[in-house]
Order: sequence, then structure tokens, then C-alpha cells
Amino acid sequence: MIHYETDRQEGRLWLKESGFSPDFELKTESVFAQCNGYMGVRAAHPLSLVNENRGMFLSGAFNRAYEDEVTELVNCPDVTWMGLIVNGEEICPDRTELVSCERKLDLMTGELQINYQFRLSLGRLIQIQNRRFASRDDRHLFVQDFKVSFLDEKAGEIRLKTGINGQETNSGVSHFNKVDCRVYDRERMEMRGELKDNSVTVLTQCSVKSGTLRTKDFKLCRRGIYESLTVAVDRKTEAVFEKITYMNQMEDEEKQKERENILANASKSGYDILFQKHERVMRDFWSRSGLKIEGISQEEEAAIRFAQYHIQGMTPWHTDKSSIAAKGLTGEGYKGHVFWDTEIFLFPSLLYTYPETARNLLKFRYLGLEGARKKARDYGFAGAMFPWEAAKTGEEETPLYAALNIYTGKANKVWSGIKEYHVTADIVYALNQYYEATKDQEFMNQYGYEMAFEAAQFWATCARWDEKKEKFGIYDVIGPDEYTEHIDNNAYTNYMAAYCVKIAYAYAEDLKKQNPRLYMSMDRKFQLQRRMRDWESFLKNIYLPSPGEDGIIPQDDTFLSKPCLENIEKYKKSQIKQAVLLDYSRDEIVNMQVLKQADVVMLLNLFPHLVGEEYVRKNVLFYEKRTIHDSSLSYCAHAQACAVIGAMDLAEEFFDKCLVVDLDDNPYDSTDGIHSASLGGIWNCLIFGFAGVHYEGDVLYIQPHIPDRWQSMEFQLTVAGQDIRFKVTNKTVELHTEELLSCPLRVKAGEQEYLFKDSLKAVISLEMERQKEVV
Amino acid sequence: MIHYETDRQEGRLWLKESGFSPDFELKTESVFAQCNGYMGVRAAHPLSLVNENRGMFLSGAFNRAYEDEVTELVNCPDVTWMGLIVNGEEICPDRTELVSCERKLDLMTGELQINYQFRLSLGRLIQIQNRRFASRDDRHLFVQDFKVSFLDEKAGEIRLKTGINGQETNSGVSHFNKVDCRVYDRERMEMRGELKDNSVTVLTQCSVKSGTLRTKDFKLCRRGIYESLTVAVDRKTEAVFEKITYMNQMEDEEKQKERENILANASKSGYDILFQKHERVMRDFWSRSGLKIEGISQEEEAAIRFAQYHIQGMTPWHTDKSSIAAKGLTGEGYKGHVFWDTEIFLFPSLLYTYPETARNLLKFRYLGLEGARKKARDYGFAGAMFPWEAAKTGEEETPLYAALNIYTGKANKVWSGIKEYHVTADIVYALNQYYEATKDQEFMNQYGYEMAFEAAQFWATCARWDEKKEKFGIYDVIGPDEYTEHIDNNAYTNYMAAYCVKIAYAYAEDLKKQNPRLYMSMDRKFQLQRRMRDWESFLKNIYLPSPGEDGIIPQDDTFLSKPCLENIEKYKKSQIKQAVLLDYSRDEIVNMQVLKQADVVMLLNLFPHLVGEEYVRKNVLFYEKRTIHDSSLSYCAHAQACAVIGAMDLAEEFFDKCLVVDLDDNPYDSTDGIHSASLGGIWNCLIFGFAGVHYEGDVLYIQPHIPDRWQSMEFQLTVAGQDIRFKVTNKTVELHTEELLSCPLRVKAGEQEYLFKDSLKAVISLEMERQKEVV
Repeated sequence: MIHYETDRQEGRLWLKESGFSPDFELKTESVFAQCNGYMGVRAAHPLSLVNENRGMFLSGAFNRAYEDEVTELVNCPDVTWMGLIVNGEEICPDRTELVSCERKLDLMTGELQINYQFRLSLGRLIQIQNRRFASRDDRHLFVQDFKVSFLDEKAGEIRLKTGINGQETNSGVSHFNKVDCRVYDRERMEMRGELKDNSVTVLTQCSVKSGTLRTKDFKLCRRGIYESLTVAVDRKTEAVFEKITYMNQMEDEEKQKERENILANASKSGYDILFQKHERVMRDFWSRSGLKIEGISQEEEAAIRFAQYHIQGMTPWHTDKSSIAAKGLTGEGYKGHVFWDTEIFLFPSLLYTYPETARNLLKFRYLGLEGARKKARDYGFAGAMFPWEAAKTGEEETPLYAALNIYTGKANKVWSGIKEYHVTADIVYALNQYYEATKDQEFMNQYGYEMAFEAAQFWATCARWDEKKEKFGIYDVIGPDEYTEHIDNNAYTNYMAAYCVKIAYAYAEDLKKQNPRLYMSMDRKFQLQRRMRDWESFLKNIYLPSPGEDGIIPQDDTFLSKPCLENIEKYKKSQIKQAVLLDYSRDEIVNMQVLKQADVVMLLNLFPHLVGEEYVRKNVLFYEKRTIHDSSLSYCAHAQACAVIGAMDLAEEFFDKCLVVDLDDNPYDSTDGIHSASLGGIWNCLIFGFAGVHYEGDVLYIQPHIPDRWQSMEFQLTVAGQDIRFKVTNKTVELHTEELLSCPLRVKAGEQEYLFKDSLKAVISLEMERQKEVV
Repeated sequence: MIHYETDRQEGRLWLKESGFSPDFELKTESVFAQCNGYMGVRAAHPLSLVNENRGMFLSGAFNRAYEDEVTELVNCPDVTWMGLIVNGEEICPDRTELVSCERKLDLMTGELQINYQFRLSLGRLIQIQNRRFASRDDRHLFVQDFKVSFLDEKAGEIRLKTGINGQETNSGVSHFNKVDCRVYDRERMEMRGELKDNSVTVLTQCSVKSGTLRTKDFKLCRRGIYESLTVAVDRKTEAVFEKITYMNQMEDEEKQKERENILANASKSGYDILFQKHERVMRDFWSRSGLKIEGISQEEEAAIRFAQYHIQGMTPWHTDKSSIAAKGLTGEGYKGHVFWDTEIFLFPSLLYTYPETARNLLKFRYLGLEGARKKARDYGFAGAMFPWEAAKTGEEETPLYAALNIYTGKANKVWSGIKEYHVTADIVYALNQYYEATKDQEFMNQYGYEMAFEAAQFWATCARWDEKKEKFGIYDVIGPDEYTEHIDNNAYTNYMAAYCVKIAYAYAEDLKKQNPRLYMSMDRKFQLQRRMRDWESFLKNIYLPSPGEDGIIPQDDTFLSKPCLENIEKYKKSQIKQAVLLDYSRDEIVNMQVLKQADVVMLLNLFPHLVGEEYVRKNVLFYEKRTIHDSSLSYCAHAQACAVIGAMDLAEEFFDKCLVVDLDDNPYDSTDGIHSASLGGIWNCLIFGFAGVHYEGDVLYIQPHIPDRWQSMEFQLTVAGQDIRFKVTNKTVELHTEELLSCPLRVKAGEQEYLFKDSLKAVISLEMERQKEVV
């Protein structure tokens, strides 16, 4: 199932690649990356390989190189490369005799270890160990060490060459318009690269901690600065090099002297002490976010920890000026852009464990409001139309045209940036989740109301009257399922739009009552009174596709009238993603009942009580049959939905699949970065699906359907300001808080409802029989 | 001596690398490059290596990526890469068991052949042959084939992936602001890359000439388009792929349809026929330029052919809008810029074999006059000050500042662009050589006079009056020797300046007499009358350092008063270039009698009759003792000078050294391109040095001093419009022309002078005893 081995040792849980696997190089570089939410460093071998793609990404370091390129997350200068010459012989994994090789990632701390044994041409065995981590204690620090020793315990000479390589590009596109290099005190190398509206500074120091330093030279080359250290070792010592790198950007610029001091101190502390400090922060992370599942296999645990490690690694803990990219900080894929993935797939896990960070993600969207307003204006709407792809600002970053069609020479229009309206409601959905779960009135007053009012106004102005239906409809959109395009009244879109407008209306009403002064001021700015009339009319007349006689909510106006794709099982089972497009044209696919990914099912995940339980079940099963799961967003969504309806065989099948989206043995997947949304979806499936938790309208719903092989799930969520510990089985729900409740909590577990007032320490027995899955 | 093997076979002369030599990869890529004067393609292995640097350069395709970068020759999209999967196994020289490997360049045609045998993991042996050449028949065509066969003659399946890779950069700097890809007729892939003021189009077609095509797919990626061809072979056939590439630029843009037709036709013709056409042009080249030396070793011949092959490959035969770069078209070194190397080191071989091409090189400088005028104005002078480094225009391309000093953080000023004045005289020297050798009055009228008048005016205005000397001096310059800087009255510079002004004055006088109308018009434009007065005064008063009592021409005002560098032999013998800078600071070096390269010796090479024979000998020997030869321009200059004075031991020693400047066993040299000037210098040494030919003032001087091991040298030179065949020994000179002389020719062979009027078929016996070398 998982391509990598797992190994638990002394509080660590390793994901391990044994042996030298150049075919998996690009995938493993992504999967094993060191990320701390500020920086992400691909886990490339220190020694050069033919097929490698080193990458260092800094949260928020975007640039647009040319007018015809898009704004993208810049591949920053590399500090991981190492050139090694032992007794005059250059060591190269592709050529030197490799006796053994392992690369492993500790999921608990994100530490990477790479160990090699090589046999030199004269027969001597050497051992190399390289360790690295991106510090959570000081987000600017990237820490590495290299240990080189002779296994025959004779003396020898080791030359290490390492430095800062500013020649890295994003697939051939360079971003730094200027690169300057320095050496301070013959100790620290610095490279400063200028972007159009930012700069990146890399300061690095490589110290010899063991062995006798013989020579030390610095060398400048174009966009690169390197240090060459020759160290002699006698028969008992090993050569130990520690390389500590401090990275920052203009926006968190510290004075050069301060940077140097931090680095000098870090260098004095050394790897082990810096690692202890980092580990402390990671322990806190796990104590807040970790899940304890009785009966779980080590492999399953590793896959879940993997998801959480990477969520940790992609989350901008430090700022509200960045958000989470579709590939986190692990690769160039999707150019580091932010999609609905963030608010719908990743936001929940943060909201319920680090609400202050969830707040930052919303604030990022607020800071992008100007861009969203501009986008709405550009398309003839009012209010704010959030970008389908965002980078650093709220501007739409989806290119209008993709590369030319190579056969026709015509430019392919990219419709997602224009037609995937739903992101504007997805953000407000997250906003309201946040408000419900935190009651953060200050955020609402300062940012949240404005976001909702502007989003709602977009929806009110983009709907059009349908004479036949005598309803407002939303036309020519793309819903979550990208195998249907240019469709009318996509159920997901219409329901989400209605939700957004309803929420905004309720906010405005509340505001009028609770904070008339703010209401007045917002009314002046946004003509709230007039808007509320629009919204009322919208809400009264918006067409919300309801289940037909068969109980099925039509995905859009025409979906149910299209023919099914025969032989869909072939594509569902195919190892190749989007294999269906090899047999059918895109136009043919658009005209069939075939989904790339969850669509109505997504809607039901967000609103599990939208329709009656039986309808939910029917729709989930109906649409699953028609879904190929060709998007990495699909398995997790279906796993969650199937768990909610208790269709456990399907739930477990999909859960197993989503667990290995980045970890399976397909070497061509994840090469340009891990799949952030799917990793978020694993958490959602665990908590919302298996544990059956749902918080809505001040009610905490719990209806567990956990796999038979698990006895219980334990975890902690922060709901309405309370840190609640959960322990659920299929028969019981235990809840407790350490402190007294700051406000009463209503809980509906199974069929029963409870109100907790002062303290929460409850064991609730679920009367209801667990539903056997029905497929 | 030569790191490579040589091998003569069926009219071919191969330079061969046997075995897989990754250490020499970058050097061999330069040395074995395919160049036809329009394109240059580095001889990288088709299969990927760890340490490779693919390069494709088009004459004149320059770009400046960022304000803080210089204009440079763009590394164009690569078409040499090949991915090979045999029976499902990827072939990689670094990893797959390599049974044998050879790479070889045919110096007669520039064809490259790379042959491998690999053993697959299951034990089967395969053989791969890759051939390529850049066509001289159609300069836009780059032709490759790949043959893959199983040596066990069983059936198998071969998958070849190849295409156009636009991700290449110049050491991390990308140049194309836009890249579009197309496929025509599922046959031809096209990539078009936009530069700021040019564009490069690459059209390529890969055909299967043997084997059964099973699948054929095209794939677009960022800045790349690839084709994947799967071919089945039975036990008797091999798979043969031919990949033909057509490259052009905006300035020689042909309509897409025309391009396609040329490529389609070329593809139909196939490798062998295209090669025959190319070979025909190369045969013509050799019949005009080739030297026949009796007694020469195969290695020596190979090194000379190597020089001539690359001169052929770097010469822009097709245009007067490009010139010759310091690294030809073989690498990124010196950014593809044009230095004095072109006019002083490379121009002569073209002038005497392809005078029409020599004309193009001068025209290139004429087209750059505007830039040269601007440079003169910028520095407060009149006339034209030619750029020390030129790219596509006459603008100075030497950066004002180099990279920061890494230790001090201060910018290093680059003085060569500001202070190496002499290039402005070097160009006029070449111009007058051209005029003397061709009598091309039309060129002079249209371009030549203007160049000379403008250059002379620069010299007249940059000289300053020296009260003490009561002479004009030229102050604060850098002469050819770059180990002295900011010196006054560099002998080379002053003599060349005086020559330039003298020539211009003579031109003006001539013009006045021969073509009063043109004189009048130029007088209006350039105030010739006034200028001639300036020039007269300049010529009367310019300080020309004459030999002192010891017969030595002082290199500059202070040189002879400085201490000598003790222990200079250590650095002369050092394998490491510029090793002296490891022991001494640049300031210390500047204050010693130590030369990086020929300076006064260069002057004497250009004017062998400047001073009496004995003075020449003294100066050559005096300065050689003080020269480390740390520049690749030095050995050839000294070899020539020593041959002229008959110091044959030294001449041969330096000649041997200059023959291997690109071919010796130093893997760190020539990695960023071959050394153009040194290659030109080899020819100069052969013709001007050993054969002792010198044409000046309508007299053809011949005074051979050929190495003892050679019996005779035969070659053809075009002098004054006559193709003259020479055969020289140390005792005789044979001259003859096929046709009647169009004008009389004065010849001075040894001490005797002859005048040939109608026909030239002479065997001249040299009475003089050959001088034994005296050192």
C-alpha cells in the first residue's frame, strides 16, 4: 500500500526509502520535504543525481518573470547540494559503488536523514550521514549536518564543497533580476537575490565540528557562492560538518548584523541543540493535533501523521499575508497558487486545532478583497469575486490562456479562472465556520462582515432570471467536478451561493441589532439596506435543485439527461490518472454522466443535513458510481461522505486510497509537490467522517462510524473557544474539557441531545445500532 | 600531449575520447562541438549525465535578461537530449552497465559520433550510435541520427524520447520571455522563443528509418515539447531514428511553410545525403585553407585541423551582422562577446583565405560605429572608440562593475572596457591589412575610410601633452598585458595609435587625390581638413618608446624600473593558470616586471620591421623571460615571434603548447568554450612564424624558419586578389598561381627581391643560411 517502509524508534516514526531509487527521486523529494510553514525544502540527495529537482520555497516569495508567464512561487537558491571528494575521489551516487543507501523522514519532527555507504575505487568503505530540518523554533533556520567517516578506521582526507546556488529556476524560468554574494569574516556566505517586489536573502555558515581543518576557500561563480573545506581525519575520528542557513525576505527583513548574530549563535549551539528546540515546538503541535487511534496499523498511523506533518509544514503560522498552496511548499506544481482547496479541504483541521491560524487564512482573503472586487468589476458583477487561483494578493492569477494547443496552434482558454464561481462561496463558508466555532466578533467587525457582504453581492448580481423556471439561475459555470463545463445551475454552486447570501443577510440583520453604529458605517460604504433587499429577493427566488422522484439532486440542469459512461469501472481502476481522456475527447466526456471528482457529494459533506438521511445516502452512492476519482480531491471527499452514511466498505476503500495519494508506488505522482487538499481531506474524513463530528448552529453533532479494525479514536478539537478532548467508539462518545466551559455547549450524539453548562466530562452511550454499510 | 586520441580512417581524421570520462565532460562538450558559423552545438552526450552543460548557440542571438546582467549569447533550446528505454529499462550512462563508450569528432567534417555498448540488467547487450553535424550546406540544419540495436540479435522494443527543451539557461539566467510550442502534421515539433529584440525558432522532425513504429506521442511541458516513439525490432534489424532540426532567428525568418518544406525535404533526403552535401562544402573549405606539412605527426596535424575546423565553425560566413566570439559558438564563456581577438588573432587566417568573409568582419565593426562614437563621447573624446567587448551592436558591453568583492562587499570596477584603448587601433590595423591584401576600394569608399577617420580622431583627442617629454602621451591605459594596469605610454598602444593615425592620414591624402568628390563629401561630414592638421601634429609629437641602450623597447613608462618577479619559472611551469595570484596580490603583480601575456612581442608580431632584426630578437627574448603565459593568447604570439627570429627551440616549445590550449589533459580548461584567439594564433604562427610570410606595403616577404622535423609546408593564400600556392622549406620557396597575375607582385624571399609581372611559377632558393636559434 505505502511505497515507503515505516519504522518506529524512540518516539520517532520514520517513513523510509531503502536503497537507491532514482525512479522515485522526484516523488520522494516532495514527500520527504522539510517544511515549517515558512520554508519548504525538497528532500533532494545532497550529492548530485541525473534526475533531481532541488527546490527551496519561501511562503509568500512570489514573482512573475515575464508578461506571458504567471506569478509563481519562486524556486529560491539551493543550500542542500554537497560535493564530496574523499582521498581525491569524487563521490557520486550514480557512479561510485554504492554499498547501501537509505533516506528517511521522521514524521514526528520532519527531520530527514540520508545515509550512504560507498566503496571507493581503492576498496575503502566510507559512510556518510546527512541530517536536516527546517526549524519550527526559528522559522528562518534550515539546519543540516554531514558526517563522513572511513569504516576501516584508517586516516584520510575529506573535501566538502557546499554553498548557495542561485542558478535554480522554476523549470527554466529564472526570477532573480539581480544576485549579489558576500562572505563575512571568512565564515558566513550570503546571497541576496532581487525579485520584482521582494528580495530573498540566504545566509549560511558551514562549520567543521570534528576533524582537522586543513584548507578553507571561498569561490564565487555566476549566481553562486561556494566554500571548499578540506578536513583530515585520523583513524578514530569522523569529519563532521554543520551547515546552518538563515533565510528571509524583504518583508521580514532584519538588519544584516542581526541576521549574522542569529546565525553565529545558532552555529555555536549546533545541530543537536537547535534540533531540541525545534522538537519542543513539534511536540506541542502533536499534543494539540495528534490523533490516537486504538487498533491502527503502523502504516496507517504513518500515513495520517504524514498528512498532519505536511499540513503543519504548509501552514503560514507566522503571517496573515500568505495562505496555503495546492502543493504546500514542496514543489513548483500549480505555481504555489492558493485554490478553494485551502478553505474547503485544509481550513477545518486548522480551525478546530489552531483557530488563530485559521483566522490568518481568512485575513489573507480579506487582504485580497481589492483584487476580488476588481475581478467582479471586470466580469460585470458587483461585490467581490474571489480569484480561482491566488498568489500573494487577491488578484486572479489563473492565466486567461494556457499554452497553445500544440496541434491547432490556437490558444486554449482557461475557463476555471472565469467560471469556477464557487470559490467565492467556499471562502464565506469557511468564514462562517470560523465565526461559529470561535465567536470571534472582533474579526467579524473588522474583516468578516465586509467579506461576506461583498461576496453576497457578487452572487446577487451574477444570478439571472430564468423565465421558464421563474427563478434566478446561475449560468455557464464550472462546479467542483471539472469533467463538466459550461453548465447551468450546478447544485453545489447554487446551494453554496444561497448559503453565502443567507449568511450575509443574517450578518447584516444581526449587525443592525447588535452594533448599529457599525451597521450604519457599513451601510454607508456598501448600501447594506439596498443590498439586503437584493439578497432577500435572491434568496426567495434562487433555484435550488431539489431531489427528484428518485431522490437524486441533479448536479446541474442537464446532467441527468446525459448518457452514462459505459465501462466506467475500467477508468476507476486504471493506474493512469485521466485515462478516460485517452479514449474520449473532452467534449464527449462533458456530455456524459461522468465525474472527475466529488461534486454533489462535496455539497453533502459541507451540509450533511441539507436533505434527509436517506437522500444523502442515495446521492452519495448514485454519484460515486459515476465518479472516476481522477482528481486527488475525490477519494477523501467520498471517504468522508461514505463514512457519514455508514457505507463502511466504500468509506474504508476510499480512505485507504486517499491515505496513499502521495505515498503509493506511482513514481510519476507528487513529483511536483504533495497534494495539500487530499492531506487536509484525510483529517476531514477522520473527524467529520469516521468520528462523525459536525459543528453547526451551535450544536456539536457526533455520530461515529469508525472502521471495525479500530477500537477508538481520541483527539482534541477547539470548539467555541473550548479545548475538548474526544474519545469515540462506535458505541460511546467521551468528551471532556480540562477547564470549566466558558459558555454552554449543546451536543447531539447519535439521536440524543445534551446541554453542558459548566463543565464537560461525559461518556455518552450511543443507543442506535451502527448501520451496516449498504452499497 | 593531446588528451584525446587521433585516428585517421578513409579520409577522416578523428579526435577520439575512448571510455566514459565524466571529469572531462564539460571540456569535451566544447572541444567536440558541431559548429558551422551560424550555429554551435556542444557535444553533450545524448543521454543525461550528472555533470553536463548542453548548449546551442546561434550567431547573433544575443539578449540581456536583466538590467544587472550583461548582453550575452543566448543558450538556445536543446535538441540533443535523448531518453532511451529499451525493453522497459531506462538507459543511463551513469548507472546502466557501460561496456564501452567512445565519442569522436571528425576534424575534416565536424561530424560527431558517440558509440555505446550497454549491458541491460537482464544481461542483453545493446549498441547505440549517435551521429550529428551542423550543416555547412544549409546553415539552418542540425542533423542527428540514433541507431539502437541488440547485439544478441533477438527481438526487442526500443522507446526513444526526444524533442526541444527550452528550459536551458545561461548558468541559471533565462532569456526567452515567451515560449510557444506546436506540432505540425503529427510530424514536426516547433518551439518559438521570444527574446527582447529577436526570436528563435526551432523546428524538428524525428523519423523512424528502420524498425516498426508502434506508438508515437507528443507531450508538451513547460518550455518543452517532446515526442515519444516506440519501435519494435526483430532479430535482424536495428532501430534507426533520424532527427533533423531547422533553426532560425527573426532576422533570417522564413515563412513557417517554407521552413516546414525545407525540413520535410531534408527529412526525406535523410542523414547520409545531407551529410554528403555538407561534406562537399567542407572539402572546398579544406582545399582552400588546408596546410600540407611534410613530416608532420598525426597528432600535430590533428591539432592544426582542430584549430581550422573551429575557425570554420565560429566564422559567420553568412552575414556581416555578427562577428567572432572569444569562445566561438561553443560555450557561454565571455558571454559570446567579441574582443580584439577577432581582428588581431583570427582575422588574418580569413583575410588570406576568405577575404570576402574578412570583409564581413570589418563591416560588422562599421555597423557598430554609432556605438563606438557614443563611447568616445561618453569618455570625453571625439571620433570612435570601439568597444572592448561587443555583442550585436557597437555598444560597449563590458560591464562597468563586476560582481561584488565577496569579502569587502564593494563593487569591483572593470577597467578593461574603459582603459584597453588599443582595440580601436587593432581594428584599423585589420582594416589596412584588408585593404592592402585585397585593394577593395569599394569597401574603403563605403566603410573603410570612415572607420579609419573616426578611429584616428579618437586617438588624436585622447593623447595628452607631456611637458617633460615634450610629446603627446597616452595615459592610464591597459595594454595587451593584463598584469599591468593604469600605465602610461604602453608601447603597443602608442605604436598602434600612431599607425592608426598615420594610415588615416594617408587615406585622406590618397582620397583627396584619387577621389576628390568623396573627399569633399567626407570633409563635410568629418572636417577632414581640420582633422588632418590634428593628425599631423599628433604624428609629429606622439611619444613612441624607442629601444634604450640595451635595445629594449620599454613596455610602458615605468615597467623597466620595476623589480623582476623572482622565481618566475615556478609560475611559468605551473599547471594552474594565474597561480601567481595565489602568492601575490594584484597590486604587487602590477608593480613587478611580470607579464601575463605578450605585449611588446605582440607589437613586433604585427610590425616585424618596426626595429632592426637584432632589436626584435632582443626584445622577444627579454620579454619572454618575464612572461608567465597565463593568458591563452600568449603561447601562440610567442611561438610566432620566436619562429620569426629563428629561436626555434622556444618557437617549437610554445607552438606545442599553443596546439594543446584546448586539447591538453586539464579538465578544467575550455569547459565554457574553446579559445578562439589561440586557434587563430596557431594559423598565424604557422604562416607568419614558421613559413615567415608577411605582406606589407605591396611586398610579399617570405623568410621560413620551419621546425627541423618538418620537411616542407604547402598552403594557399589569397594576396592582392591572387590565389597563390606556397611550398616552403628552410631552403626554398616555391610559389605559383593557376592564373595569370592580375597585377605585378613583389616578393622578397630571404634577402632577395623579385618582381613577378604576368605569371607566378617560381622556385626560389634561399641563399642565406638558416640561423640557428640563439637563446
